[in-house]
Parts: sequence; C-alpha cells; structure tokens
Amino acid sequence: MPDSADVDAVVVGAGLAGLVAARDIAAAGHDVLVAEARDRVGGRVLNAALPGTSGEVVEAGGQWVGPGQDRIAGLIKELGLATFPTYDTGDKLAELRGARARYGGRIPRLNPAVLADIGQAQLRLDRAARRVPLDAPWSAPGAARLDGQTFATWLARRTATAGGQAFWRLVTEAVWSAEPGDMSALWAHFYIHSGGGVDSLIGTSGGAQQDRVVGGSQRIALELAARLGGRVATGLPVREIAWDAGGVVVSAGGRQVRARRAVLAVPPPLAARVRFDPGLPAERDQLTQRMPMGWVIKVNVLYDEPFWRADGLSGQANSDVRPLGTVFDNTPPAGRPGVLVGFFEGAHAQAAARLGQPERRDLALADLAGYFGPRARKAAGYLELDWAAEEYSRGCYGAFAAPGTLTRYGRSLRAPVGPIHWAGTETATRWAGYMDGAAESGERAAAEVVAALAG
Amino acid sequence: MPDSADVDAVVVGAGLAGLVAARDIAAAGHDVLVAEARDRVGGRVLNAALPGTSGEVVEAGGQWVGPGQDRIAGLIKELGLATFPTYDTGDKLAELRGARARYGGRIPRLNPAVLADIGQAQLRLDRAARRVPLDAPWSAPGAARLDGQTFATWLARRTATAGGQAFWRLVTEAVWSAEPGDMSALWAHFYIHSGGGVDSLIGTSGGAQQDRVVGGSQRIALELAARLGGRVATGLPVREIAWDAGGVVVSAGGRQVRARRAVLAVPPPLAARVRFDPGLPAERDQLTQRMPMGWVIKVNVLYDEPFWRADGLSGQANSDVRPLGTVFDNTPPAGRPGVLVGFFEGAHAQAAARLGQPERRDLALADLAGYFGPRARKAAGYLELDWAAEEYSRGCYGAFAAPGTLTRYGRSLRAPVGPIHWAGTETATRWAGYMDGAAESGERAAAEVVAALAG
Repeated sequence: MPDSADVDAVVVGAGLAGLVAARDIAAAGHDVLVAEARDRVGGRVLNAALPGTSGEVVEAGGQWVGPGQDRIAGLIKELGLATFPTYDTGDKLAELRGARARYGGRIPRLNPAVLADIGQAQLRLDRAARRVPLDAPWSAPGAARLDGQTFATWLARRTATAGGQAFWRLVTEAVWSAEPGDMSALWAHFYIHSGGGVDSLIGTSGGAQQDRVVGGSQRIALELAARLGGRVATGLPVREIAWDAGGVVVSAGGRQVRARRAVLAVPPPLAARVRFDPGLPAERDQLTQRMPMGWVIKVNVLYDEPFWRADGLSGQANSDVRPLGTVFDNTPPAGRPGVLVGFFEGAHAQAAARLGQPERRDLALADLAGYFGPRARKAAGYLELDWAAEEYSRGCYGAFAAPGTLTRYGRSLRAPVGPIHWAGTETATRWAGYMDGAAESGERAAAEVVAALAG
Repeated sequence: MPDSADVDAVVVGAGLAGLVAARDIAAAGHDVLVAEARDRVGGRVLNAALPGTSGEVVEAGGQWVGPGQDRIAGLIKELGLATFPTYDTGDKLAELRGARARYGGRIPRLNPAVLADIGQAQLRLDRAARRVPLDAPWSAPGAARLDGQTFATWLARRTATAGGQAFWRLVTEAVWSAEPGDMSALWAHFYIHSGGGVDSLIGTSGGAQQDRVVGGSQRIALELAARLGGRVATGLPVREIAWDAGGVVVSAGGRQVRARRAVLAVPPPLAARVRFDPGLPAERDQLTQRMPMGWVIKVNVLYDEPFWRADGLSGQANSDVRPLGTVFDNTPPAGRPGVLVGFFEGAHAQAAARLGQPERRDLALADLAGYFGPRARKAAGYLELDWAAEEYSRGCYGAFAAPGTLTRYGRSLRAPVGPIHWAGTETATRWAGYMDGAAESGERAAAEVVAALAG
C-alpha cells in the first residue's frame, strides 16, 4: 500500500511488549515508530510517586519478577536496573471459611481435610497443566473437553470440601483477577503451565512475586523508551489502520503514518477497537470478541513505618471473604514509608468499583485492620487505580480466554494478518499475563517483522 | 453538552431495533436522526435478489416470524406487509450419528433410547428455563451456578447417550450459531424461555420458523426507513460519541451530530468499538467484552424448481455431521425458482470460511445432495453471506453471553449511561436474538428516550 513508507515498522502501544518489539526492530537497523495512546509509556506497568519521599515510588500496575522469568530478568540487567527481594520475612496470614491462621512455612495450619483436598487438586492441576503444549494449547490431550468447560466446573469436580473450593476461587482471583466461572479450564491449564505451576504463580520467594525492581517496574519501560528516543510518540491514539500486502497506513490523532509492517501491542479486546480497512478476517475478529480482561483495583496504603514487621508479620495476607483478598508488603527499599499493597480482584473489584472513593478506601482499611490490627486504619496515604476504568487497558492483569476460544480461535493469537503482527503478554507462550510474557511477545513479533522486512 | 442540539435524539444503527426506536421517537414529536454505517438499512436483515426472476427475493439474513412474536407481527401489519407460511408439507429428513430418518410428524424415528434421552433433557431444560425471569435472569434460582458453567457442561450432565449429546449440539448450532461449550448455561436457559421453549425455537409450523414475509424480511426495515425519510442517513459509520449529562456529540464520517439523547442499536461487541468520551463505566465495558457474536454463513441454493416437493419432501433437513446442518425450503411464494436455504453454523461456519468460495459451494451442494439426492447438485444459482466477515455485524444470529457474564454484567445490558440508551435484539426480554426482540428493544429504548426528553 505505501509506495514509500515513513518508517519500516510502526508499533501500536508503548507497553513492555511494544517497546521491546521496537527495540529489536531498531537494533536490526530498521526505522520504527511507536504510537502510544496515553501520554506516558508502560501500559499496564506504572509507577506512582510516594508522597513525602524524595522520589520513592510504588507500582500502580504490574510489579513483580521471579525465577524462570529470564526475558524480563535479562531486560532489567541490560537496562542497568536492579531488583530487590519482596519483603518475605515473618509470618503470613490466611483466612479461609472463617478459620484464621498465622503461619511461617509454605502451608497455613488449617483444617487437615481441607489442606488435603487443596493439595490433591493442585497435584492434578499441575500435572494436567504440564500436558498443555505452550505453543499450541489446542493440541493438548482432551483439549476440546477442557475448553468446553469453565475452570469452575473443572475445580468443582476435583474438590470435595467447601474450603477447597474457596481456596481455588481465591487463587483464581489472585492470579487472573477473574472468577473460576468466567474462564476456560483449558486457558487456566495453559496459563499455569506457562507460569511454571501453581506454586510458582502464587509464591513469593521462589515464585512470581519474589523480586521487585528498584525505582519501580515502570523504569523498565521508561529506560526502553529513553533509548528509543524520538521513536516513541505518546498521546497518539491509533483509531484506524488501512492495510494491504504492501504495508499499512496508521491513522492516529489526525496524523497518518505509513509503514511496511505494523505490530499491534495491545490486549486482544482493545485491538478490536481499532478500525481495520479492510476488516480483519473473521477468525481474528472472533478471537478478540472472546478474550475479556480481568478486573482489578490495585490499592497501595501508606503508613509512617511498616509496623507489621515489628509484630513478626510479613505483610502477606489472603482471605476468601475479605474484598481485599490479597495483600503484600510493598515498602520501598529504604524501609519508609511502610506500604501495604492490596488487590480488589474479579467480582470484588466490580463490587468495590460501585463505591465512591472514600467508601472504597474505608473498605480497604477495614480489611487491612482485620489482617494486621487497628494500626492499619491509621493510613498516612492511599493510592488506588481501577484498571478496568482505564480507556487504554480496560482491565488487568490480562485478557483470558472464555470457554471455546482457545481450541477454535487460539491459532489467531499470534498469526500475522498481512503486514500486521500481534504482540502483548496474552500472546506469549511462557509467563503469559506477566511482564516476562510481554517481553517474549515483543521479541517474537520483532523477529517476524525483521524477517519480513528482509524478505 | 450540546447547548442546542441538531436533533433531540440520534439513533446509531438502522437495523430493526434502531428503526423502530426512531419511529417511536419521531411519533412522540421529537426530531430524530438515524446514523447507519452501511449504505443500506436492515442490519442483520437483508434481501437478496433472485437472478432470473422479476423481483423475487430470498433473505441473506434473518427471515422467519412465528407465533408469540407479537411485536414483529404488529409491525408487519402496520407497514402493510404480509406473511406466508414456510413450506412445511411433506417429510423431513434427520441424520443423527449415522442413522437417517425420513419422517412426517414432529419426531424422527430414531433409536428409542436416544429419543427418550433427548425428551428427558428437553423436559428438564424447558422447565428450568421457565424459572429464569426474563427481565432479570441473574435472579433465577441457582443463577450463579448456571452462569458458572457452559451449556455443554449442563447438557453433558443431563444426557446419557451420544445421540442425545449430538442432538443438543445440533440444536445449539441451529438456534445460536455457536457451540454448547461457548455459552453460559444461564444464557441458554434465558434464551429458551425468551423464545417460548425448545419446540418453539426449533419448530416450523407453530414455531419460530413458521412464516415468511412477502417480499423478504428486509421489507420491514425498508418500509420503516421510507416512513422516516431523510431522518435515516446511510454510509455514516459512527466512530466517536462525546457525552455528558446534557447530551451527545456523535462523530461519523467527518460529520458531527449533536443530540440530547442517543440510542445505540448495534450488537454489544460492536458498541464497544465506538469510542466514548469520556469512556463508559467499567461495568458496561466489561459486558461488551464478554458477549461475542455467533458465526453463521447462510447459503441460498437455487434450482429450476423445488424438485424435492415432488418427492414428498418438505425441504427441511438436519444433520449432526454435515457442515450444512440445517436446511429449509426457501422458495418464493410464486413457487419458482426452487430455493433451499442452508446454514453453516458455529464451528462449521468457521471451517467453511477457511475454504474458497467454489469449495464452499461444492461442500454445500454435496450436503444438499446427501439430503435430497443427486438433483441437488444441479444448482441454477448460489448465494451466500458470511456474517462474521461483515464489518458492521461481525457475526450472527446474535451475541451470546460467555459464562460469568449474565449474573455479574447482565444489569448493564439495558441500563442507560447518562444520555446513552441501548437497543438491539440482545437487550430484549422476549425473543432475544430474533427480529421480534429487536422490535421490543427499539420500543423500550424509545420509551426511555421520550420519557427523558419530556423530563
């Protein structure tokens, strides 16, 4: 289509996936432009300044890295950034069906029948997940059967206790910010395999919440963008992409960019909101109709100091009944202010979003006080972000596949359409839904583009 | 927002829902403008000329009306149109799991154990469906449990034979052009109640396929549009709606329309592709991420005459194995040419869409020959439409709710957002997914707008 292109490749979206794709395309000697709708880079990764500090931050979006996340670890190193361990000293708190446990090891002392029930289901889940090929989940043994049922159905058949059911609901909310009844059981299995198993996904030391990035995880995006310099254009929401075999013309904010290749580095449901001319093949369009975003409201609560540490508590807490179901210590490396980060996830996020901000703050503080005692009510600050309300994310942590999607439409997740390539953590094979998956997807899409530009 | 509006109300989409809404708003004395993206009216209702006739047509989209569809029946009468009965004389053909039956009554003579299995499940399904309140499916007994599972899961637990399972898959494809594993069991129950039960949904005489519209069903839309005259603007794709409590500014094709109220009369996933400024509440946005469209390719095959009638066949055929799983006689009232209409639905549509048009035609003719003998190969003409490839439908017959959607997001289906109202057959309480439901939704949205304009 473009006789002469303005650039070799245009990347839509300056989240980690798009920035990594642009880095690799530029490194191969091609002109690239990143068009970002927001006035900032990072997408679902975003720092928030801690008031009253000299530049300390916490994350309002994705933040943790862990073992096995080699791509994001490599990127952090390459960019001269550093990590530090998530605070994981002291006891954790767990509430399940009214029972409360304070525990030091991996497993809370709860009803042994419930623990056995949970363990048995986890064994079966991890084993079944490992049989799902990461690059082709649709070819897993029994894929059609798994994809034709919700994760809730799968779990209900493999748990015998109400406590076991409550536990897995909590895990689903914590990992996907969605409910077990929303999601294809095959997607859940794929995702668990993709992230190295249940313990890996939910763990702190040794798991996906092990480490934090000094200066906040958005530093990764900011450093990538700094190296790309003028090749990143913010405030440029892409509304339309005209395309043919020869290239694309991208319309954004009254501006048109011509390129030989495009990388769409936005979540599937948002990719559907770009108008394509001609329209995309029905297979691809149907995919984007069937991968909704999870819903999370992330809350950072500030205290003069991390008072729970003196009580021998790690700041980590989980509950199947409290709306703020998952909490971690998110204190910056300097140790002050004390920060607890909590998550309203799935149905809890939806319910909390109906409240006004003051009521939601009260709800969060009440839950924190329930975990950590009355001092938790005396917050020095409160930061929150409802990711489903963000026009250019419309949910977090990521998109998941509704039942029937992966087996029939999964092949369209990564398959280029003419000159259009797809990135974003949802398209990753390893650590889909994580920053690591975003990096993988950017590298893969860039490799496709570089090969096409050489052809 | 608009100090002075160009019109009182703007309607987005000139399908039946939008045209009915506009009719009622205009009848109440208000200025209304219908903005239609396509260069024609009717949306998912579309006539196709029969070549070699003097103006005879068949329908490429929605076509049948039946008992209990009082709103569309009233509309047909009001517009001076007429109906005629679908050809329903002679035997029907049914194939199930390799068994083939030619039968005259309601029930094919197949394996009695399978028939009993089907009948038992239908009894339970109809009974459970009647307990789903049409205006609030989320309040049905056991709603959360039903919504947390796929229709496939529900059916698997209530069928004992492979034939029974195959039958219900065929019914699901025929009614929703989707697969049982795609859809919330609660949505399936709601929809069955909404359409008067399983027999009503799948029946010809006495059911939803009983009658046809003389001149083709698009005549309803064309007549409505003719009465609205210059108030319908085609070729005007709405891309952006700015809004506040005072009204909307609709941007379409370089043109801006200011109005005090807007009615969005497009399917939920397409409503999400309009940019709203400010963005819609997350509840509404999430809903539109979780209601994908079914996929159907509708095929009309022309013959010199309806040869099957002479063989004592009605032209009605169903098969659980043939891609063209549902067939009817679609001959125009004059009796020539003979027309068989067939449907590639759900997974069959997706598979057929991968073929080139000549191969897809061959596939359709092979299936018709399988049903009606070798004469069916000698087609005089072939018309097809892949509704999932249509930019401004992106699927048919309608959108369905993925699991977890109706209980948590169903309230957003009809709830206005500021000055924005929602129409479209998916928002109907009776005959959701049908032309009748579209009419209901248009009337309801218009009543909301008229009340608001009077306020």
